[in-house]
Amino acid sequence: MTDLNNNLTSNQPVKKLDSDGVFHSWSAQGSLDPLVIKSGSGCRLWDYEGREYLDFSSQLVNTNIGHQHPKVVSAIRAQLEELSTVAPAHANYARGLAAEKILARAPEGFHKVFFTNGGADANENAIRMARTITGRDKVLSSYRSYHGGTGSAIVATGDFRRVPNEYARAHVHFFTPYLYRSDFWAQNEEEESARALQHLRRVIEAEGPGSIAAILLETIPGTAGILTPPKGYLEGVRALADEFGIVLIFDEVMAGFGRTGKWLALDHFDVTPDLISFAKGVNSGYVPAGGVIISERISRYFDENMFFGGLTYSGHPLGMAAICGTLDAMEEEDIVGNAARIGSEVLAPGLKQIAEQHEVVGEVRGVGVFQAIELVEDRESRQPLNAKSMGQAKASMVESGLLPFVVANRIHVVPPCIVSVEEAKKGLSIISDVLGSIRR
Amino acid sequence: MTDLNNNLTSNQPVKKLDSDGVFHSWSAQGSLDPLVIKSGSGCRLWDYEGREYLDFSSQLVNTNIGHQHPKVVSAIRAQLEELSTVAPAHANYARGLAAEKILARAPEGFHKVFFTNGGADANENAIRMARTITGRDKVLSSYRSYHGGTGSAIVATGDFRRVPNEYARAHVHFFTPYLYRSDFWAQNEEEESARALQHLRRVIEAEGPGSIAAILLETIPGTAGILTPPKGYLEGVRALADEFGIVLIFDEVMAGFGRTGKWLALDHFDVTPDLISFAKGVNSGYVPAGGVIISERISRYFDENMFFGGLTYSGHPLGMAAICGTLDAMEEEDIVGNAARIGSEVLAPGLKQIAEQHEVVGEVRGVGVFQAIELVEDRESRQPLNAKSMGQAKASMVESGLLPFVVANRIHVVPPCIVSVEEAKKGLSIISDVLGSIRR
Ligand SMILES: Cc1ncc(COP(=O)(O)O)c(C=O)c1O
Ligand SMILES: Cc1ncc(COP(=O)(O)O)c(C=O)c1O
Repeated sequence: MTDLNNNLTSNQPVKKLDSDGVFHSWSAQGSLDPLVIKSGSGCRLWDYEGREYLDFSSQLVNTNIGHQHPKVVSAIRAQLEELSTVAPAHANYARGLAAEKILARAPEGFHKVFFTNGGADANENAIRMARTITGRDKVLSSYRSYHGGTGSAIVATGDFRRVPNEYARAHVHFFTPYLYRSDFWAQNEEEESARALQHLRRVIEAEGPGSIAAILLETIPGTAGILTPPKGYLEGVRALADEFGIVLIFDEVMAGFGRTGKWLALDHFDVTPDLISFAKGVNSGYVPAGGVIISERISRYFDENMFFGGLTYSGHPLGMAAICGTLDAMEEEDIVGNAARIGSEVLAPGLKQIAEQHEVVGEVRGVGVFQAIELVEDRESRQPLNAKSMGQAKASMVESGLLPFVVANRIHVVPPCIVSVEEAKKGLSIISDVLGSIRR
Repeated sequence: MTDLNNNLTSNQPVKKLDSDGVFHSWSAQGSLDPLVIKSGSGCRLWDYEGREYLDFSSQLVNTNIGHQHPKVVSAIRAQLEELSTVAPAHANYARGLAAEKILARAPEGFHKVFFTNGGADANENAIRMARTITGRDKVLSSYRSYHGGTGSAIVATGDFRRVPNEYARAHVHFFTPYLYRSDFWAQNEEEESARALQHLRRVIEAEGPGSIAAILLETIPGTAGILTPPKGYLEGVRALADEFGIVLIFDEVMAGFGRTGKWLALDHFDVTPDLISFAKGVNSGYVPAGGVIISERISRYFDENMFFGGLTYSGHPLGMAAICGTLDAMEEEDIVGNAARIGSEVLAPGLKQIAEQHEVVGEVRGVGVFQAIELVEDRESRQPLNAKSMGQAKASMVESGLLPFVVANRIHVVPPCIVSVEEAKKGLSIISDVLGSIRR
């Protein structure tokens, strides 16, 4: 038998296994030099040689509860002893409980949960529901968005399940608010919001309202730069969706379940979508799981009408146990409150100070433990900092024991929601030191 | 804290939780009456009221190793104690080992493994690789196939990752061999194989060979009816792919890892594809995982060229631990050999006898623990047995304590690969009794 809790004391054999056999995402494979990670606890991770990292990435912004939270580990262990897997068609206690706990955190009027393995298939199924209920085809989403990596398996499928699903066509993209790099020549938040809504109305009219099934939006776009929408924007999108009979889907895969200092990012706004997709934070990714929270109207439609979607591991018992453990722990330990406090009392003021100290910072922004530093060549032109300097900054942070989340010309400041004041300050101080050493 | 190992003694609360909150796959939600499953071991499952089921479905044909195999449970537990989750970009021991163990079971010349959450995204990424390396667009697959439920998330995505992936178009379907219901007016296997190849050649010519990136085939189509290709067919497809520079992908999601009595279903044939997609049996679904096994040529291409695909839980440590535990146990306990022996010594002769005894049986077929009984109105017309009778037969089997896998007019006989002679015989005898009671 394989010994997974091995006694390795060097990273080398793990690196070798990795480069011998593992094909990596979003990269050319020839020049990779991955960090080796052995184990973790809370906001810290270790390799086999005793090196410690402070996790300011939450991996892919998913370990909201930190690493190896004992309550989540023990919920998974309990389910593992009982039953590891079961088909989606059967009824299972952990799955029913997970749905109940998620619905308790959703806005009023949400009735059911469809479970998936992650964020991409959550969005797939939200789109499927919108297309089915409207009988329309097009899906509008933002250029500044990431919704997942899938786009063809059901269309490759030959059997009858393909026919109602042959639709990864008809995706239309539009521009969303981002005042620092406005696509609408706006000077302030109010103008950005109003013009972005006017632009969306023009796109809807020009595409033909009667052909549009859904508007899909990250409540707060994450990978695109942590772009909190200006006041009134999401409410305006809701009004447009209502005016034209379009299903409104909020993608809360990255922003949901504590990240922004509220249970869902939509709790910051006065607006309710029709469908909510989630993954990542719902169980911190301890076991792959995601899903769609379904409003009463859409849920009732599918009481009588077939839903043509599914996957082998929908509502997987271990994933569901991890959801139960995570949501219990988040509530019992006020982890969402901690994310809010760290955000407003440590990260926001700390980032503001960093922006004052370092010319290379163009803008800082965000909420809760969902913040970003945008780096520029100079503040006048706002030209993004070059890739080489970004790469050097990233390497320096890692060298200093900080695991950062770097995207394009930005450092996303996204530690676990459980991060302590000391850890948050330590991470900021490493970032500040590294920014101070950037030579453009 | 939630108690997942609860002391419920009735199914009712679990049914209620399920119908209150859980949205089910491939169904209208209004009329569901799911079985409640509490726990399992080997080929048996139990509900909260002490009812026992013999699992002749392997859930969704995934629990090849049976329920709660101690070696798999302990591998997951070991990883759970160490580190539950880690980002795909890092190197991780369980992931490297899982890749190594999978490559050891692949044909010669396969170099790397890209990991996903399940079968759909395995095929997504195999298609992505084929499209990238060929610079072509179209994907040919069989009408009699199921390749997964995704078809739009990357196209909904707005950011740059969409651009190289905007392709869930250009899916073309063709007919594959199925002598019992030949689409080629063939009278015997040889004719079916030759005509199916001629048909595929015509489709390739008519679509334009220079536009075809991939041919995607289930090595032995599963959900479509367990349709072992006739002699020479897959070899002929390989020759066509070579002639026209097309990437050949075998989908081994259902047929792979023991199900057919060989490690991979392709081991029954004298043919090597360029990419192999897998999921289900690789770890029996104890933790969601799947992936693509990549041949040297394609792997080397991506040493220098970007691969534009990814997902948060690629190579998830718990899924990887479950793969290590499963492949170790399968080898140590000769579970693949057991599947072969049960198939040839118990299931095949038993099904032959059932076919002789019951007029309602049109054909029986299959290999290993991957067999099917096709039911017909009458043997002359071969008209599929009506849905009402199928529904009654299914209900009777469940009533008799057998969990069957029923698709359209077929009973798929797909117990775990560890099934014992006694269990296999017991299952067949329940099926025989139920078939005897069908009144058309
Ligand atoms: C907002 C958003 N939606 C969807 C996804 C896709 O999730 P997954 O990688 O689990 O498929 C991501 C992943 O980063 C995301 O950030
Ligand atoms: C041959 C085949 N490919 C792909 C899939 C899809 O796998 P998943 O449900 O894990 O997405 C299945 C599922 O039944 C399958 O049988």
